[in-house]
Amino acid sequence: MTSKAVVVLSGGQDSTTSLWWAMDRFGQANVSALTFDYGQRHRIELDAAAAVAERAGVAHVVLPINTFEALGGNALTDNEVDVKEIGMGDLPSTFVPGRNLVFLTYAAAWAWPRQIEHIVTGVAQTDYSGYPDCRRATIDALTTALNLGMEAEFVIHTPLMDLSKKDTVLLAERLGALDVMALTHTCYAGQRPPCGRCPACKLRAKGFAEAGFSDPLVAA
Amino acid sequence: MTSKAVVVLSGGQDSTTSLWWAMDRFGQANVSALTFDYGQRHRIELDAAAAVAERAGVAHVVLPINTFEALGGNALTDNEVDVKEIGMGDLPSTFVPGRNLVFLTYAAAWAWPRQIEHIVTGVAQTDYSGYPDCRRATIDALTTALNLGMEAEFVIHTPLMDLSKKDTVLLAERLGALDVMALTHTCYAGQRPPCGRCPACKLRAKGFAEAGFSDPLVAA
Repeated sequence: MTSKAVVVLSGGQDSTTSLWWAMDRFGQANVSALTFDYGQRHRIELDAAAAVAERAGVAHVVLPINTFEALGGNALTDNEVDVKEIGMGDLPSTFVPGRNLVFLTYAAAWAWPRQIEHIVTGVAQTDYSGYPDCRRATIDALTTALNLGMEAEFVIHTPLMDLSKKDTVLLAERLGALDVMALTHTCYAGQRPPCGRCPACKLRAKGFAEAGFSDPLVAA
Repeated sequence: MTSKAVVVLSGGQDSTTSLWWAMDRFGQANVSALTFDYGQRHRIELDAAAAVAERAGVAHVVLPINTFEALGGNALTDNEVDVKEIGMGDLPSTFVPGRNLVFLTYAAAWAWPRQIEHIVTGVAQTDYSGYPDCRRATIDALTTALNLGMEAEFVIHTPLMDLSKKDTVLLAERLGALDVMALTHTCYAGQRPPCGRCPACKLRAKGFAEAGFSDPLVAA
């Protein structure tokens, strides 16, 4: 039986690199991309995801999530909350409690009737922005919960888990995905070309600089 | 610090009993009820949850979830799927993959900024309808994932986990919640008075019969 995979695709640099990783590993024809429309402040992210999936030539599904907006209180979906480095406790104001847990659970729920066992996500615990739901221990515990809860044998792949942003750029280059980065979106301010000042822009620029490549999004 | 709890309230017999359990354990003033409007075929469930919360005198929050309908393919949200005893594999057609995992994750996400550490759910692995996400092992793994993913110390309480339907009725009686059962909804056919023929109605009737009480919903 051919192994099939679904990639959680936000339209950012990391998930795009993960999509190319999945195509390299499972073959383009066996890969689907799943994007969540969860009330992002910047709809440009959804456009980026669609453009990336089209360039990849893989099936692209967008699932709506209206629950995070109803929960409120974070800087990614709530216009009244500022993007700051630090938010509640030690967590950034962009932290949406449970966001990755929900994304991966829905990815599994989508994959389940399609007999897709491999789930790929671009989360990373290195160069890590303070999101505890991106850590390996969290992903491992969730995998156990998903497999018990759905009587399944999902494998959650995190090809970027231990990569620095520099190494992620190098991986994208090796996979021939560097040009595609021109289609991706990272900026918290929702600007294109990117603002260059927000934490996400700074982290991305650092990665490209250390890898010794120019960012085609900025160059474009 | 006073311990606070949120109860996942569907408006059914089990979650209603769990709400009374939580009020007994944490005190009425420290308990909130959270209901998910996830595209249930039968809106009567939401009315039941509201009526139960009002009778309990606790704060009641309804969160929307539009994702399960978009996923489709199950008998609880999809009008084209019949309610049968058996669905895909050995799982019933009413199985919504990941439903309880999503509910509990959202409950935690709602509780997190409110510093509510106790989450109460009416799931049970006894008299069990074939839902693997109701088992203790699943709940334990999810608790680990939630606490790692949110840097939290949630405790998920499952007061009915090892109770038969008979014992659940006896617990409701002990908690003074037997009358409240007239407000609850169980029937898969969405009928009030209940159809008496669907698997959910049969299981409920069996519990009341074995406990030696008449069901105030049927009597009403």
